[in-house]
Amino acid sequence: MTDVTTFSAETERAIQAVREEVAALHGELVRYGLVVWTGGNVSGRVPGAELFVIKPSGVSYDDLAPENMILCDLDGVVVPGSAGSDRSPSSDTAAHAYVYRNMPEVGGVVHTHSDYATAWAARGEEIPCVITAMADEFGGPIPIGPFAIIGDDSIGRGIVQTLSGHRSRAVLMQNHGPFTIGKDARDAVKAAVMVEDVARTVHIARQGGELIPIPQAAIDSLFNRYQNVYGQAPQGAIA
Amino acid sequence: MTDVTTFSAETERAIQAVREEVAALHGELVRYGLVVWTGGNVSGRVPGAELFVIKPSGVSYDDLAPENMILCDLDGVVVPGSAGSDRSPSSDTAAHAYVYRNMPEVGGVVHTHSDYATAWAARGEEIPCVITAMADEFGGPIPIGPFAIIGDDSIGRGIVQTLSGHRSRAVLMQNHGPFTIGKDARDAVKAAVMVEDVARTVHIARQGGELIPIPQAAIDSLFNRYQNVYGQAPQGAIA
Amino acid sequence: MTDVTTFSAETERAIQAVREEVAALHGELVRYGLVVWTGGNVSGRVPGAELFVIKPSGVSYDDLAPENMILCDLDGVVVPGSAGSDRSPSSDTAAHAYVYRNMPEVGGVVHTHSDYATAWAARGEEIPCVITAMADEFGGPIPIGPFAIIGDDSIGRGIVQTLSGHRSRAVLMQNHGPFTIGKDARDAVKAAVMVEDVARTVHIARQGGELIPIPQAAIDSLFNRYQNVYGQAPQGAIA
Amino acid sequence: MTDVTTFSAETERAIQAVREEVAALHGELVRYGLVVWTGGNVSGRVPGAELFVIKPSGVSYDDLAPENMILCDLDGVVVPGSAGSDRSPSSDTAAHAYVYRNMPEVGGVVHTHSDYATAWAARGEEIPCVITAMADEFGGPIPIGPFAIIGDDSIGRGIVQTLSGHRSRAVLMQNHGPFTIGKDARDAVKAAVMVEDVARTVHIARQGGELIPIPQAAIDSLFNRYQNVYGQAPQGAIA
Repeated sequence: MTDVTTFSAETERAIQAVREEVAALHGELVRYGLVVWTGGNVSGRVPGAELFVIKPSGVSYDDLAPENMILCDLDGVVVPGSAGSDRSPSSDTAAHAYVYRNMPEVGGVVHTHSDYATAWAARGEEIPCVITAMADEFGGPIPIGPFAIIGDDSIGRGIVQTLSGHRSRAVLMQNHGPFTIGKDARDAVKAAVMVEDVARTVHIARQGGELIPIPQAAIDSLFNRYQNVYGQAPQGAIA
Repeated sequence: MTDVTTFSAETERAIQAVREEVAALHGELVRYGLVVWTGGNVSGRVPGAELFVIKPSGVSYDDLAPENMILCDLDGVVVPGSAGSDRSPSSDTAAHAYVYRNMPEVGGVVHTHSDYATAWAARGEEIPCVITAMADEFGGPIPIGPFAIIGDDSIGRGIVQTLSGHRSRAVLMQNHGPFTIGKDARDAVKAAVMVEDVARTVHIARQGGELIPIPQAAIDSLFNRYQNVYGQAPQGAIA
Repeated sequence: MTDVTTFSAETERAIQAVREEVAALHGELVRYGLVVWTGGNVSGRVPGAELFVIKPSGVSYDDLAPENMILCDLDGVVVPGSAGSDRSPSSDTAAHAYVYRNMPEVGGVVHTHSDYATAWAARGEEIPCVITAMADEFGGPIPIGPFAIIGDDSIGRGIVQTLSGHRSRAVLMQNHGPFTIGKDARDAVKAAVMVEDVARTVHIARQGGELIPIPQAAIDSLFNRYQNVYGQAPQGAIA
Repeated sequence: MTDVTTFSAETERAIQAVREEVAALHGELVRYGLVVWTGGNVSGRVPGAELFVIKPSGVSYDDLAPENMILCDLDGVVVPGSAGSDRSPSSDTAAHAYVYRNMPEVGGVVHTHSDYATAWAARGEEIPCVITAMADEFGGPIPIGPFAIIGDDSIGRGIVQTLSGHRSRAVLMQNHGPFTIGKDARDAVKAAVMVEDVARTVHIARQGGELIPIPQAAIDSLFNRYQNVYGQAPQGAIA
């Protein structure tokens, strides 16, 4: 455990960039009220390496900084001698690692216990797609993953089995809470913010009476459009 | 697309004033929790010109500034060579443009997915006028607009058809969310803040039991008074 | 209207102190989320004078300062030539004035449209006393006042008739929202904060099932104790 | 009452450390929205002495500082001549003192009227354990304590009787609100934050339909694991 792993200068620069991004993105979980105390965690894959960066376990959000983020290999083992390696990584590290090992297209993973998303999870009920923002972002309902507890690969496996081939980047693990994935850590954080927002809106809507479904063709159209043209594209592609 | 459009000095000053106002007003959407991530948008008409200013697409609220607001003509086409024209405007630009073309009295448009207003929209249910602040501000119930998806003029047309001749400055587009209009951008933002506030209060009220309606004559009296005497008027007109 | 009213140096000092307190207390309405935009208002009686200080109408909470608070006599007429007298006072000034004229023991009045309290008001339903903090602060249920609209003394009269001889310092005016009174402006603001807090807690409690009443003798005991010994008393009176 | 009690330098250092911790921890109650106005209180036992430090009564959260925290003996009597002893301690001091006298393993006590936890208390209904975070933190349901009012030892006795031998560090005192305990003040504050979070999530979940219970064996496994390995442990104990 006292050996120090060394990387190429390019990999070191990539690690540092991910450390900075992952540390900063935890602030978005706080800003949107998705986490309390030390709960919740963000990780990001290091491009071009078999590595990811994740939050340390049980450390206050006020104290997170690039240098105390923790560098792990894709088995979730802390890289010996790396910055922050004197601390334990998030207790959800095994689940993040499982996702990175099994979903190569995923560059970021987020887990929270945000209130409304977790409420749907406590009933094991998927969130129906009744608002256009949800069709844009998730392309349909937010699915439920299996009940699984910490200690082996069952959480990671449940995430991967539920989200593989699914449009949604969010899964509500039963009785537990949301996990989200993305092309990078920022994209996974966006999904964590949006899943709580739609969980809250659809909960409130249904408390007041019957929901109007969105026709499947409209959901498909919104999802395809949003994935392709939203945001800043090369000039000329006015969305 | 590489031509640069030039305007009179007076129009340039008016454009700059609207850029500053529209950029700053986005902060009110954040302050009142009406938006998450990059969702939501404010636009303002440039007085005395066939132009309006709107938020760029998919840009963080932290990064909005007068110079990256986007200047469009009333067809929603970005003015070539204007500040910010290297970015795409909000994906809702066509709807804003449709409103400006068809409602000459409108000087500002706002769109959000604020939670409680969107919850009423997901049921396609207008908000009944049971609190005096709602009578003051909207003069009656908040109406529902048709289901319409992005891609043509159907959202803009739905807004205009619903709000033309209506007292309310807010419409809840079915399964989508609120659009508000005003005499200028600030007035439309106020309507966006107030529609969420009344959507929340009336939702909560109805969860607890039966609502007491306000007599129509009282609604009329409150609306007429508020439109005429509220706020800072010439001295002597004590409200 | 161009005459300037002059007061003794002592009264001027008292006016200035109330201006400062009333301006600052509006910040508490914002802090606790009781108001949006320019809604809500605080006033305070000037001790030893037939005067009170109130918020101007339609001015942003960011712009409130002691010198733009408005000085009124007990008929709600702005004192000519006083600081801020170029603006209109709150549109609720007549209701505040009515309270000061008819309840000499009242030194502060607050009005908001805070969401949960207004929700009870929209049903015309008093808030039952089922939590000890409510027994402490209000000594029983929060009563409903009559439906009354702006334009004459009917709001003020409704407040006075409901609260005279009542333990509660808060009344929920039907379809309108809470008005609170206190021995000074700070005490009335505390009541406004507490009435929203109990309105929210009791609403949530009842959504989940049947409430347990508190025996009347316990309510009486809590109220009497809290009025007499809570807070900082002379040393030795350990509460 | 004018005598000054003196302590060893070591005890004075321990007192000062607890004063600083207890003053700072009140900020967490504000941050998580658990308290309004001057409600709520945190106390911490002074290690190695028959003393604890608690918030003064009726003082604004903005004005709390180490030197105005109040030092009490285990009967809840203010230590004469100690810093802050010119003020009265929290009106809940007797309940805190009873806990310290009867539960020697407890190093911190917190009391709030946080909305969702108090809502369960107003129905006298324990919070069922349906989310894994609750199994981690509390090891099962959050119990209800007896109805008891201030004035004698009945609140303290109710807390001790309910929590002695119970996994939960939180009790919901009927019609009153949560009290939490911990190995130190920080741990008790964490429990206060978490109990409101689970009270809110489970309330929301149940409003939407039937909850899925967590099997007792899974609850036991989660609780045992969390108590032993979560957070920063000696290197090598990767959680």
